[in-house]
Amino acid sequence: MSKLRLTIAMSLDGFVAGPTQDLDNPLGVGGMRLHEWVFDLAAWRRPQGLEGGEINESTPVVEESMENIGATVMGRNMFGGGTGPWGEEPWNGWWGENPPYHHPVFVLTHHPREPLACDGGTTFTFVTDGISSALDQARAAADGLDVSLAGGAAAARQYLEADLVDEMEIHLVPIFLGDGERLFQGLGFGNPRLVHVRTIAAPGVTHLKFERG
Amino acid sequence: MSKLRLTIAMSLDGFVAGPTQDLDNPLGVGGMRLHEWVFDLAAWRRPQGLEGGEINESTPVVEESMENIGATVMGRNMFGGGTGPWGEEPWNGWWGENPPYHHPVFVLTHHPREPLACDGGTTFTFVTDGISSALDQARAAADGLDVSLAGGAAAARQYLEADLVDEMEIHLVPIFLGDGERLFQGLGFGNPRLVHVRTIAAPGVTHLKFERG
Repeated sequence: MSKLRLTIAMSLDGFVAGPTQDLDNPLGVGGMRLHEWVFDLAAWRRPQGLEGGEINESTPVVEESMENIGATVMGRNMFGGGTGPWGEEPWNGWWGENPPYHHPVFVLTHHPREPLACDGGTTFTFVTDGISSALDQARAAADGLDVSLAGGAAAARQYLEADLVDEMEIHLVPIFLGDGERLFQGLGFGNPRLVHVRTIAAPGVTHLKFERG
Repeated sequence: MSKLRLTIAMSLDGFVAGPTQDLDNPLGVGGMRLHEWVFDLAAWRRPQGLEGGEINESTPVVEESMENIGATVMGRNMFGGGTGPWGEEPWNGWWGENPPYHHPVFVLTHHPREPLACDGGTTFTFVTDGISSALDQARAAADGLDVSLAGGAAAARQYLEADLVDEMEIHLVPIFLGDGERLFQGLGFGNPRLVHVRTIAAPGVTHLKFERG
């Protein structure tokens, strides 16, 4: 069956976004540091249409995270920013005219809105009736392939709490943000119910993979 | 100068002890799982007077953590348990008649008590005038060697918040305790002020080392 796969970067002190998230700092203060390990990788640059780049121990992990994905689910903040203009006026999110997904994306929100079709095959569909509905729609759209859970923290936590995540790859970055948004908070004892299957140490990051036990 | 070195095991969701710590569960429910990777290692068994054991990628890390240490600082719970009989009557803690330290140990507490000398060279000195005093006394006793900060979480947090930790080795265990005591909580933005210097992936644990930047 089509799996729900969560891939997310986290600081060693447990934050997946820094404090004070806004339009200027969509990842919060310091949050961009969670992603520095990826930007120079050829495996990351290629889907953005960029040439060249590095190859290291992270390469197969990044490639794997993009393989066999037919649809994406994301939270509202991941689409358009927590304190952004979203809700007041139509806005096309952070992603520009040609978002890097190139497949159907389902955005969890409380604000109904018509679907948004972008260049390059990415469509954003706005789902107002909950995480199960969004997952069902994403699975149908994925047509046998897996569904990527892109974040942010709140959306990821909801799916973990509901025990709907089948695979999880934590990119653990050995820095301290000190404050911000935690992934593993309020999930309840015993959650997530996932078992460690692989560790890969790479420059600036350690990749920890988990699967259903 | 003599360094203060913190070595502590943490779950991926950030807990260094499980919930409901008491005399039956000094590490909290599930907390013992943080240490399973170490028990079969020859490097851990040897100082306990046990023969045999395994050698793997964790071996040099465990050996290094015990090298060049002349004294230890620990919190009251690490000595005698949060809800233990300590305070009501003299008690010799978790450590038995021949504790594995074999050097001076300074216990942070609010209860004055005469020093306790054990077999094998371990002495427990009870310090009631704060973390700086305990560190000063430990440094003097270490006689040029380093001081080990043995935990628990509250003591470690106090030293981190005061920016007194010079080296930190996190044994990151890829499990989820779901609840319990966090190490990295309430330290304030920018803390700890330590820089990642080494990652070692080993069976059941990833060792992340940090030093003063």
